This record gives sequence, C-alpha cells and structure tokens, in this order.
Amino acid sequence: MTSSSDVRKKIEAVNARFMTMFADGDLAGVCTLYTEDAMVMMPGMPALSHRSGVATFLGAVESLGVKQAKLATEEVEAMGDTAWERGNYELKLGNGTVADHGKYIVIWKLRNGTWELHRDIFNTDQAPPAG
Amino acid sequence: MTSSSDVRKKIEAVNARFMTMFADGDLAGVCTLYTEDAMVMMPGMPALSHRSGVATFLGAVESLGVKQAKLATEEVEAMGDTAWERGNYELKLGNGTVADHGKYIVIWKLRNGTWELHRDIFNTDQAPPAG
Repeated sequence: MTSSSDVRKKIEAVNARFMTMFADGDLAGVCTLYTEDAMVMMPGMPALSHRSGVATFLGAVESLGVKQAKLATEEVEAMGDTAWERGNYELKLGNGTVADHGKYIVIWKLRNGTWELHRDIFNTDQAPPAG
Repeated sequence: MTSSSDVRKKIEAVNARFMTMFADGDLAGVCTLYTEDAMVMMPGMPALSHRSGVATFLGAVESLGVKQAKLATEEVEAMGDTAWERGNYELKLGNGTVADHGKYIVIWKLRNGTWELHRDIFNTDQAPPAG
C-alpha cells in the first residue's frame, strides 16, 4: 500500500526533473515525463494530445521567452496507479521577470514503475489587462 | 465495486442538475453541489476556496451576462470515493451567443452518498484577441 505522501515525494521528484530539463532547454526530455496518451489543456486553444501535443505546448511556452518554469506542489492524492496533484506555477523570462504565474491540476499515472503526467491543465492568476 | 461508467452516469446527473440550477438562476443551489472544502480555480485570480468561493465564481460568471452553462463530460475515472472528470464547457448569453467555450478537469468526492465537485479548474479554448 503506497501512501499519498510517498507518491507526493515521487511526483515532486518528477517535477524537479521537469524544471531542470526545461531550464536546460531539453524540451524533448520534458516530453518523456508525460504518458504516451497525455493531454495538455492550455488556455487559448483546444486540448493537445500525445507527446507531440506536449511538444507543441512546450514550444509555445518557449516562444514567449520563458527560460524557467517553477512547479510547486500543494496537494497530492494517490489511489493505486492514479494520482491527482494541485499546484502553482511560475514562468520566468531570461532576465528573471515573472512572465506568468498561476495554478494547475495534473492527473498522474504510474506506468512501468514511473509516475508520468497524464492530464495537465492550468490557468493564470493574473487579471487580464484592462481593456 | 463501482465501475467508472457507473460513476460517470452519476456525475453526469449532477452536471445536469448544475446546468438546470444555473439556467434557473439558482446559484445558491449550484454551490451545494460542491464539497464544503471545495476549490474553484478560475482564470485571472488565485484559487477560490469553500462554497463561499464557489458563490464568488458563479457571481462572476453571471455578471458577464451568462444565462446558460453547458457541461459535456468526455472522460471519468473513479477510484473508491474519488473520481476525476475531463470535459468541455460552453457559456451562452441571454441572446444565445456563445460567450466562451473551453475545457475543464473536476476532482469529485463521494460525500454522504452523493458525488460532489471538490476541485474545479478550467480554461478557454478561445485565442486571446490580437493585441
């Protein structure tokens, strides 16, 4: 029986790899942290599927000049080979400016002994510019 | 043993109540579909907590002139008293115009025999207006 706190540590370790790979520009590496049948649900477009969709998502983030992605886990609940995580993110430009910050939920799957991101949805905490 | 397809039917029934109550302007009723310790993660602000936070969220949607909220379940996976759902939403104004459409993930909890929304996050599919 694996407790949610054990799984939380494992998920935080995968998030640490995500952050390191992203900062190193290894977007192909980040893609491998997702399940083969992952979906990324980013604002402004319909959901993106599979690791090719994850690559599209990461490329879109990189094209905004984001050099660093911080992921901070707030909650994890694990049930067998599935877990859900709630957390906060922060995206920084090369000069250290925070380009965006917000919140996310990820559904995780334990596949071949490794926790992988399976469904990933997020949105900004920042109010839209006054129009 | 309850299957995910049984739970999906129950969750879709709660979503049907959500849609009816919302269309009737019964926002207090919609709040009771959420857990006491719910969180709603809407774009443009930090997460809102408890049913009072749900009321703030629903009031914000109503203040945009939205008269109808459509929820369409795409996936449900249940594990004991917890389930996650992925779906699509559509918000319509009084004249039938679609004000927004997008996607969501909800973490559900079975509390006192009823499936309740526990974590609710969504974002738009619509691209931001060209700036």
